Amino acid sequence: MNALIILAHGSRRQESNEEIVVLTRDVKNYSSDEYDIIEYAYLELAEPNLLQCIDNIIIDGASSITIFPYFLNSGNHVTRDIPAIIETATARHPDCQFDVSTFIGNHKDMPKLILELASLK
Amino acid sequence: MNALIILAHGSRRQESNEEIVVLTRDVKNYSSDEYDIIEYAYLELAEPNLLQCIDNIIIDGASSITIFPYFLNSGNHVTRDIPAIIETATARHPDCQFDVSTFIGNHKDMPKLILELASLK
Repeated sequence: MNALIILAHGSRRQESNEEIVVLTRDVKNYSSDEYDIIEYAYLELAEPNLLQCIDNIIIDGASSITIFPYFLNSGNHVTRDIPAIIETATARHPDCQFDVSTFIGNHKDMPKLILELASLK
Repeated sequence: MNALIILAHGSRRQESNEEIVVLTRDVKNYSSDEYDIIEYAYLELAEPNLLQCIDNIIIDGASSITIFPYFLNSGNHVTRDIPAIIETATARHPDCQFDVSTFIGNHKDMPKLILELASLK
């Protein structure tokens, strides 16, 4: 089964974490049948963390997991922390295929989205 | 003159700050004539900060400034810190019109963008 994990930073502020729950629901509603499982995880400050999420969805049958970094910049979290966690996950689940997508800030349409929202102010 | 400031968090990592410079250039290239001035600023850890940027573009002739929070969540930075800075800026420049846009994570197309990038992995 194919799975997608939307990985956010995580916050001490519960409302911010809740936005990721809503986003994940919206992604599920928007997607067609590319993924059998779509879940969220947090890198820090909130649960489930990425390893917990991976363990859970492998129990549910995931055999190929795409991790989507919901980050705006290619900072240390994206370049160092996420790859380190995936290395651990790969050692723990050698039969599962792991892929890490590029981060959201890298989408070519960001300028368009910025101008659209700015014009609504 | 109408101005747009793309306001990012700012990072200790120079490459991350540089991505905002490139993004701002892309927004300039993408925009038509809505804004006479398009600049970037950082909330923390890098310069120019928001007040410095506002002071500079008012010297350049800005009379209406839209601040665009390049943040994924409605955390304390968006709900508390940015409004506090705008309050200071308004007191300092009472003749300038300030507007704060919603944050990038609030764009309705985020699910679409996530699925597009995830499919490229």
